[in-house]
Amino acid sequence: MQTKLVKKHYLYQRIASGLEQQIKNNVLAIGDKLPSLRDFCKLYGTSQTTAIKVYYELESRGLIETRPKSGYFISGSLKRIPALPKTSQPSPESGQIMIEELLEKVYNNPAPIGITLAHAVVSDELLPIAKLNKGLVQAMRELKGSGTAYGEIQGNEKLRKQIVRHAYTMPDLSHEDVITTAGCINAISYAMMALAKSGDTIAVESPVYFGILQLARSLGLRVLELPTHPQTGIEIGALKKALEANQINLCLLVSNFSNPLGSLMPDEHKKEVVRLIQKHNIPLIEDDIYGDIYFGANRPNTCKTFDESGLVLWCSSISKTLAPGYRVGWISPGKFKSEILRIKLFHAIASTNITQEVIANFLETGRYEHHLRKLRNTLQANSLQYIRAINDYFPEGTKVSRPQGGMVLWVEFDQKIDTIELYDLAIKKGVSIAPGRLFSLQDQFSNCMRLNYGTPWNDALEKGLKDLAAIAMQLNSIY
Amino acid sequence: MQTKLVKKHYLYQRIASGLEQQIKNNVLAIGDKLPSLRDFCKLYGTSQTTAIKVYYELESRGLIETRPKSGYFISGSLKRIPALPKTSQPSPESGQIMIEELLEKVYNNPAPIGITLAHAVVSDELLPIAKLNKGLVQAMRELKGSGTAYGEIQGNEKLRKQIVRHAYTMPDLSHEDVITTAGCINAISYAMMALAKSGDTIAVESPVYFGILQLARSLGLRVLELPTHPQTGIEIGALKKALEANQINLCLLVSNFSNPLGSLMPDEHKKEVVRLIQKHNIPLIEDDIYGDIYFGANRPNTCKTFDESGLVLWCSSISKTLAPGYRVGWISPGKFKSEILRIKLFHAIASTNITQEVIANFLETGRYEHHLRKLRNTLQANSLQYIRAINDYFPEGTKVSRPQGGMVLWVEFDQKIDTIELYDLAIKKGVSIAPGRLFSLQDQFSNCMRLNYGTPWNDALEKGLKDLAAIAMQLNSIY
Repeated sequence: MQTKLVKKHYLYQRIASGLEQQIKNNVLAIGDKLPSLRDFCKLYGTSQTTAIKVYYELESRGLIETRPKSGYFISGSLKRIPALPKTSQPSPESGQIMIEELLEKVYNNPAPIGITLAHAVVSDELLPIAKLNKGLVQAMRELKGSGTAYGEIQGNEKLRKQIVRHAYTMPDLSHEDVITTAGCINAISYAMMALAKSGDTIAVESPVYFGILQLARSLGLRVLELPTHPQTGIEIGALKKALEANQINLCLLVSNFSNPLGSLMPDEHKKEVVRLIQKHNIPLIEDDIYGDIYFGANRPNTCKTFDESGLVLWCSSISKTLAPGYRVGWISPGKFKSEILRIKLFHAIASTNITQEVIANFLETGRYEHHLRKLRNTLQANSLQYIRAINDYFPEGTKVSRPQGGMVLWVEFDQKIDTIELYDLAIKKGVSIAPGRLFSLQDQFSNCMRLNYGTPWNDALEKGLKDLAAIAMQLNSIY
Repeated sequence: MQTKLVKKHYLYQRIASGLEQQIKNNVLAIGDKLPSLRDFCKLYGTSQTTAIKVYYELESRGLIETRPKSGYFISGSLKRIPALPKTSQPSPESGQIMIEELLEKVYNNPAPIGITLAHAVVSDELLPIAKLNKGLVQAMRELKGSGTAYGEIQGNEKLRKQIVRHAYTMPDLSHEDVITTAGCINAISYAMMALAKSGDTIAVESPVYFGILQLARSLGLRVLELPTHPQTGIEIGALKKALEANQINLCLLVSNFSNPLGSLMPDEHKKEVVRLIQKHNIPLIEDDIYGDIYFGANRPNTCKTFDESGLVLWCSSISKTLAPGYRVGWISPGKFKSEILRIKLFHAIASTNITQEVIANFLETGRYEHHLRKLRNTLQANSLQYIRAINDYFPEGTKVSRPQGGMVLWVEFDQKIDTIELYDLAIKKGVSIAPGRLFSLQDQFSNCMRLNYGTPWNDALEKGLKDLAAIAMQLNSIY
């Protein structure tokens, strides 16, 4: 469970961990009522704030649940919660499977889709659109030439300063170290173009976001997929072995809430990765696009936090939290600043001026923090509802990830279920999913799928998941 | 002169050409007063509109001039107008000169610059910023989610339809054939990435925009610079020879108002280029970014106009006419649509949504046409003022291009003047220029420079050009 990953500095975390042990040791049993907040304060001698935090923390770990007007109870679903998928076991060879056709099928489907679970986005209703629009009018008034002129090649300076201010886990970062881009994948594209040439090998997690696979392949790179744990991310031992065998020229890791697993690399793993890449002098592209959507107590660190060599290129954007259509992202390229700047200049000259200014203002006024707090709560609640529904409806033995942030779940069925078949049947019911085969260039994950939980929970989603479950049951019984 | 290039369909063009002959044959002499518009109508039996068009046409050819409150006169400067530069003679080998340092010097100059003649942009005051801002508010209201969501990968459909509607010279184009990009260079970057691999050779004009040189080199391409005429563009014979020798994998031409020469390929040349690339099955990237800024009677055709094979990839943007900071461009990729679409998806997913919508609305309402008419008139007037000033102040023997559109002039000094020295001296006077060496990877153009005339004529510009002239005189006298 994720408790292992959080430093137990704070009182509330210590108390929560103590209670977790009691639950696991059956000192506290399923259905037991927990003390009221007032009683809790008396019992533990804490403030009410701490008491609330303890209960929130235990709730986020799926250990306790609220019942309206009754209080907190030890979660009944605890013992029945679906198992975690195992650590992936990709082959140590670069895969060559073509995923283009399948991608086209899933993402260019002309059929009317009622429930779209195939994407990794949050729904409109969770975005602060009215506030962004106010910001647009303000930017129009304040920007020289209303943003019609070319901006700085490196990107809007105000935005770069705000990105740095907001990067709490990297206190040494300067706005001179940041280059803005047209979204996170554009940042990754610049990094790959700057650091690798056709025939080079890039190491990635497995499963991994198909956009990264496609980009790497389009640049002629070989992709080495490494074993990855659904909670702690890439297996450090496997990465170490690949580095020592001189197998790789470049690494790319989604260290926080990887897509599709939702894994979170513990600090010790991040430190070890940084130590390893320094030893072998191999650059690391760190895709931190989900980093701000953490369900734990604190914003997780990045590999960049621990990097003193300049080998880590930190990439992120606001596409998962504010406005994908603005195309605002960035890279902090460590010691490769001049290379990345040159590539940006050559391929795009500058970034869209006015959307950068809007985001800069949004961060500056503190609206971003406020928005993120709400967004994180909603997404975490959604994820728990999905896990509950999967538990309630899906075939026995279905495994599911426990995303510790982000907006996607990874589901693993029995080996005999093919999620491409599942996709075909589900789409007829108006439900789209992302089949697992999209997330590897090897013959893997045919029994897996990625689900998006970026839409606030509602009855239609419940029905959609029920429909998926019925199809899975049907496929289960055929074979 | 450009008269050769315009089909003489219209009455006013036929009359203008007749008068041009009379001037050249000294039937009409320098200083002669021309008939008033009223008399002209009686003489030639035309409408007043036609009369005005004839005089505008002759004025644009530098043959006649207006004197306030006196009327039209045969231009006194006609006989003294600076000569044209000769057709360039680059070596038939790919050049390897590094221009990065010089570019950095010219474009990252921290010194205060009063008069910036180094860029190829129009000044803010020529942009319809208030109208674009209204469009921004409208787009915000009308776009689903106010443009926060991802747009279509291929680009905003309304914009693609308007691009096609506005592409008068390519009546067969469909919006399905257009993909939007983050500016024209981004379109070219996608085309180069899709069509060439490291080690391939691309044929270009010479001199050629340094951004194209840098982009090609960053992708590992060899650049074959071909002889280019300052008025008619690339030498067809040289291109033919290179194609027949299997020397090139890809062509890139700025067929209309090339940067920096301002040349305009005649239709016959465009047709011949299309015939040649079809014969050899070599794709052509056509950079038409300046095509809407024509000083002649009609929007010039493109190579794409004459292409039936799908080998021409037509690239353009609104960066030179409306708002470079919006980053809105496009490509019509012929038969390479799926390749370009894939590259866009991999490297950027989609384009900024809201700025595309603003441009779509701007085109739809006809505001673009209206704006272009004014812009073209201003820029043409500017170009004539520059040529006049160069004629008045610059050292005897200075040659200058006759741009037939666009916003840059190419100036060629005596061989002994080095424009990098000129740059260094001019910058101290607060005037920036683009030294000729930036426009080749070969040892060429050290005595040339590119000047921007995208700012409405004023006394400061007159003084700036005078200062440049004084420096050139000084350099002339040293050697």
